[in-house]
Amino acid sequence: MKFISYSVGGVDSFGVVVDGGVIDLKARSGAANLKALIADGLEGVAGMIEGAKPDHALADVIYLPVITDPGKIICVGLNYEEHRIETGRAKADHPTIFTRFADTQVGHMQSIIKPGFSDMVDYEGELALVISKGGRFISEADALGHVAGFACYNDATVRDFQRHTTQFTPGKNFPCTGGFGPFLVTPDEVGPLGEQRIQTRLNGQVVQDAHLDQMIFPVTRLIAYTSTWTNLSPGDVIVTGTPGGVGMKRNPPLYMKAGDEIVIEIEKVGKLVNTVSE
Amino acid sequence: MKFISYSVGGVDSFGVVVDGGVIDLKARSGAANLKALIADGLEGVAGMIEGAKPDHALADVIYLPVITDPGKIICVGLNYEEHRIETGRAKADHPTIFTRFADTQVGHMQSIIKPGFSDMVDYEGELALVISKGGRFISEADALGHVAGFACYNDATVRDFQRHTTQFTPGKNFPCTGGFGPFLVTPDEVGPLGEQRIQTRLNGQVVQDAHLDQMIFPVTRLIAYTSTWTNLSPGDVIVTGTPGGVGMKRNPPLYMKAGDEIVIEIEKVGKLVNTVSE
Repeated sequence: MKFISYSVGGVDSFGVVVDGGVIDLKARSGAANLKALIADGLEGVAGMIEGAKPDHALADVIYLPVITDPGKIICVGLNYEEHRIETGRAKADHPTIFTRFADTQVGHMQSIIKPGFSDMVDYEGELALVISKGGRFISEADALGHVAGFACYNDATVRDFQRHTTQFTPGKNFPCTGGFGPFLVTPDEVGPLGEQRIQTRLNGQVVQDAHLDQMIFPVTRLIAYTSTWTNLSPGDVIVTGTPGGVGMKRNPPLYMKAGDEIVIEIEKVGKLVNTVSE
Repeated sequence: MKFISYSVGGVDSFGVVVDGGVIDLKARSGAANLKALIADGLEGVAGMIEGAKPDHALADVIYLPVITDPGKIICVGLNYEEHRIETGRAKADHPTIFTRFADTQVGHMQSIIKPGFSDMVDYEGELALVISKGGRFISEADALGHVAGFACYNDATVRDFQRHTTQFTPGKNFPCTGGFGPFLVTPDEVGPLGEQRIQTRLNGQVVQDAHLDQMIFPVTRLIAYTSTWTNLSPGDVIVTGTPGGVGMKRNPPLYMKAGDEIVIEIEKVGKLVNTVSE
């Protein structure tokens, strides 16, 4: 099943994607948003939409970030070996964790905003997962049972601000830099994480190209580790890190500029398209 | 004026502290919590409480974190020279920024929770400020006009988790580690930030002792810098960094353990008391 957060006529809603359209779930479920529906549990959705026809064509909706107001956005750095090597950073026994605020996110087909005072805005194609049932001290064996689904994420980064100090926070938290979409795809549609290809294309040029099984810390470990130090809750987002090929480490560097189109595509998960504006 | 977030009989509320008691503002203002009241503006409060007597004795309330649900908790590292030197970190041209989640906070007189699997839980006494009017690109000259007030903060840190990688996030985000209180004190009561003493005492022993004018980046600069990369909103919290003397850098190290009492006192701002439990 594919879930979407969207807006039509200025009203935010969410639903299920079927046959190129959206069956609205806001009225049918009574939940305020997709995060709330996930907290209620997705088991009842099949019954809610039985016999329903799409309320909107996909072409008529504005895509919102898959989860519009996550309680926590937990981002992982240096989780593919090729990227760790290109950044010159040491191996670590634990995932590298930083955070984003919810207002940094944008939906599919929306603009990533490049601040006028930086020319170092870089793409980072990543797999995001959304937590279903929350918890603390979740074991690796149980971790996949806490995943509502997956989506593409562009963890776009203002590199000069990321490097102001040792801590990444400023460069990762400019408004409208985190592309998140297009859909939340449930684990049964994605299948076991492994050979699915993750690819980033800037104006059609392949700039990142890897497979999900190249993660240093797999999603099961990310969930287990994170839940040792924080309570995970429904709708929390874990953004699992980017492969090699970021613009900063190219020669010459390849940063995004106004007018660019940046695409993150992950097999079985979807294709996230954003334009860049200043 | 001093504002408090508190709980009585299991019901969360907020109010103004007068004569050892609390005048409740939830019913009088119609706001949901102190953050919402700050967003509405504090100007009307004097009128709301005119002639009112305290609804509760301070001794009868449970203190909550001053702002229970900040949209953003922005923490500053290495903002006193003595602490920067003791940690062996390089000078930086910009503030070092990391974040906390709201569920890491505890109120005055509540327990800071030491995880059983770490014996490296450290105090960090700090001044916190709360944003009144939000904004982006706030100038240093305008910054103080965006401050609703100040409070004490204990940015307690699980050092081994802070040092898992380069990024501080895990060590700063254990549940119930961020003491925040006792009150939000408005700027007119605190006066210009300068020679006010900030002191941390562990079981009565002075372990940190400095003055607010020893900050490397003053609060005006912290607000200006932060607002270059994020929108500040009413109720957002900026935690301004800790002086020298943290437990990790003592010889021998001095960490907090169950049963300890940890006090952060800042002249004109208040005295935050927490116990430690495991």
